Amino acid sequence: MEGLTKIDDLGQPRVVIVGGGFGGLALAQALADVPVQVVLIDKQNYHAFQPLLYQVATAGLAADTIVAPFRKTLGEQKNFYFRLAGVQSIDPAAQVIETTIGLLRYDYLVLATGATANYFGDAEMQRHAITLKSVSDALELRNTLLANFEQALQLGDMEKINSLLDFVIVGGGPTGVEMAGALSELRAHVFPKDYRELDFKEMDIHLVQSGPVLLKGMSAQASAKALEYLRDLGVEVLLDARVKSYDGYTVTLSDGQRLITRTLIWAAGVTGAPVAGLEAGCLLPSNRYRVDEFNRVAGYDNVFAIGDIALMSGQPDYPEGHPQVAQPALQQGQRLGQNLALQLAGRPMQPFVYHDKGSMATVGRNRAVADIKLFGREYHLSGLLAWLAWSLVHVMSLVNFRSRVAVAFTWAWNYWSQDKGLRYIIGRVKTAPAVDAGTTAEKAIV
Amino acid sequence: MEGLTKIDDLGQPRVVIVGGGFGGLALAQALADVPVQVVLIDKQNYHAFQPLLYQVATAGLAADTIVAPFRKTLGEQKNFYFRLAGVQSIDPAAQVIETTIGLLRYDYLVLATGATANYFGDAEMQRHAITLKSVSDALELRNTLLANFEQALQLGDMEKINSLLDFVIVGGGPTGVEMAGALSELRAHVFPKDYRELDFKEMDIHLVQSGPVLLKGMSAQASAKALEYLRDLGVEVLLDARVKSYDGYTVTLSDGQRLITRTLIWAAGVTGAPVAGLEAGCLLPSNRYRVDEFNRVAGYDNVFAIGDIALMSGQPDYPEGHPQVAQPALQQGQRLGQNLALQLAGRPMQPFVYHDKGSMATVGRNRAVADIKLFGREYHLSGLLAWLAWSLVHVMSLVNFRSRVAVAFTWAWNYWSQDKGLRYIIGRVKTAPAVDAGTTAEKAIV
Repeated sequence: MEGLTKIDDLGQPRVVIVGGGFGGLALAQALADVPVQVVLIDKQNYHAFQPLLYQVATAGLAADTIVAPFRKTLGEQKNFYFRLAGVQSIDPAAQVIETTIGLLRYDYLVLATGATANYFGDAEMQRHAITLKSVSDALELRNTLLANFEQALQLGDMEKINSLLDFVIVGGGPTGVEMAGALSELRAHVFPKDYRELDFKEMDIHLVQSGPVLLKGMSAQASAKALEYLRDLGVEVLLDARVKSYDGYTVTLSDGQRLITRTLIWAAGVTGAPVAGLEAGCLLPSNRYRVDEFNRVAGYDNVFAIGDIALMSGQPDYPEGHPQVAQPALQQGQRLGQNLALQLAGRPMQPFVYHDKGSMATVGRNRAVADIKLFGREYHLSGLLAWLAWSLVHVMSLVNFRSRVAVAFTWAWNYWSQDKGLRYIIGRVKTAPAVDAGTTAEKAIV
Repeated sequence: MEGLTKIDDLGQPRVVIVGGGFGGLALAQALADVPVQVVLIDKQNYHAFQPLLYQVATAGLAADTIVAPFRKTLGEQKNFYFRLAGVQSIDPAAQVIETTIGLLRYDYLVLATGATANYFGDAEMQRHAITLKSVSDALELRNTLLANFEQALQLGDMEKINSLLDFVIVGGGPTGVEMAGALSELRAHVFPKDYRELDFKEMDIHLVQSGPVLLKGMSAQASAKALEYLRDLGVEVLLDARVKSYDGYTVTLSDGQRLITRTLIWAAGVTGAPVAGLEAGCLLPSNRYRVDEFNRVAGYDNVFAIGDIALMSGQPDYPEGHPQVAQPALQQGQRLGQNLALQLAGRPMQPFVYHDKGSMATVGRNRAVADIKLFGREYHLSGLLAWLAWSLVHVMSLVNFRSRVAVAFTWAWNYWSQDKGLRYIIGRVKTAPAVDAGTTAEKAIV
């Protein structure tokens, strides 16, 4: 890139949105008929549907079925402009952001940069763990676990083999629970056919949760049921357990217990992805921007933050902020779109009110838990009914029609065949530190 | 990998197949019920359907729809073993091959390593050109052309913009023709919607063919019709033209003409991918192994070569060898499977006879050419009928049922919507040499 940006000046106020996740995309769409120029910048040219990344990582869905190129999704929106770029800093006095491709003027700036994995400063963990925040992460995890099995075939030493077959998932939220469930289904139905030479009774899946329950934030019923499902599927769930360190081979827990794995999946919490340039006071210790009920960043009139990167004050039900999931981001994006229209029309903005529709998580075939809020009442579902509800809600939430058809079709196929067909290694593999080959002579002819 | 291989000894003759393209895969399948151990080694864990790579590169098909993981495709075959590895050399006296994961003994060795792009020793061309021999190549090309357009939006200088919008395809065989057609369809129906800010009248597609006709080897009718179709679609076809050099920006032709492009697609012939260790005499100048009518490599009893890497002597109709396409490879793999069974049963092997079913190439929507050989007669089709035949043959040739359904579905969708939906940049982008930003001041605020 040449560091030189060129963009039409429409003579209308320009809204620059940084990040095209659930919030940024919803906002861009909500501004379709508002007399503003919408400029979205993102480091990817597509929106990724994060809640299904774990299925990409476990060979259940193709990456392309859960992504939506921005230019395709929003291409017909006349006031929409996209730039493939990362943001580097903000100059709020000049109303300019610096990006990887140059300087961009704004009238309204909306930060929707989301959150990244929080390793709590553990650089060794960050180096060795795999996380699930992007499509590239998911593909890397899929490639790595398949490459691990290929490599395990070469080894004689049982501990070395186990280091490749075993998985440790850190974090008992939806991502951790769903990942553990998907891996156990692969272990039961798919891998034994592919790798007849390996003994899958040796494949252990550990789920490490720091608190006393899984799916914190969901109902007690849901938490208990998810635990029951996972244990039924043979996942070793460690509650009230914390990971102290991981060197790429040995996981050490706080109580001294050790687990051996070359694949640690980090799903243990996130931290905001803030941008340099705003006053320090508006950034909270969680790296989220403090925003008011109109999603305005504290101290600024024309800088907003939505979604995971925002923490809204004055919300008695959510003193620590709204949950960092899709729904609040989406609703904030929609509300902010309406509010910008109101403001341009000289009318007062409406405060954001979060409508919690409930939460759900799936563990496997016919097994899910759901807390659904309807007409002020909460319903707790589990089993087949929850699983159908989860599937339906996720298909309908996908951004475009093509994705909905493709995901529904793939799920039907996978369900019917008990198979996950996307077991190919294309692209990057996370290289674990070399395992000593042990005492067997190298270059033996077999 | 630890350089240490472990594999069951079944007490049966071991057939080691190097490469799982059309030939290697067909052979492995043909040996399903033969009392041998089949060991396939490949650098990828999947078979890729090369004839459709150009559609992956032009956002028409997802990569996963045209690949078939070996372990899934052949997983139920009890005598089948797979190892993810590359071959390094052969020791025919010891009957051992050296691979990236160790030494492997064989009773019968089958080289099915295929062919790679032939740059005729031009290292600069090899560094800057993109080819279409693997899934990674196709994805890299897709990523690169999309990234080019994103970058073109940033530039003011028309020559620089054109260097990003223009494409030069070298080679007028099926890959070159199909690629040119697919790019012209993207130019007509897809890109102008995505990139409203670019003027697609500026996007030139050049197809450079060294000989006087396109699709050499097909009928004169087919060649002429393909040329007509491409010119209708606005492709600039240069016949009897040769590329002299390419520095990543300027293409110089033999007659001195210059074309500017940052994306040169090399589809101008292939060379064999031989393995070290066999006697020099059996390797021909085209880097293909000289084989007899049983696909035995000259001078060896238990070393075979099939497909692109083999050149069969004593074939009056094919003095330069069979065409380096799917059909001969597939048929040789099947025949060799039968011949190994015969040999083990102490019966004489049957010579290979190539059954040419004809050739076809598609240029675009409803536009294709086909020479079909049926019952000793040759039929020349073009237009809609040829296009339907091409589509049907390609869908039916895909390795597994899932791919057939997915490709047929995607094609129906693309046809109906006149869209190619897979326009996302995931993974590697070919980085062209930096383009001088020209006189415009850097860091201008826009």
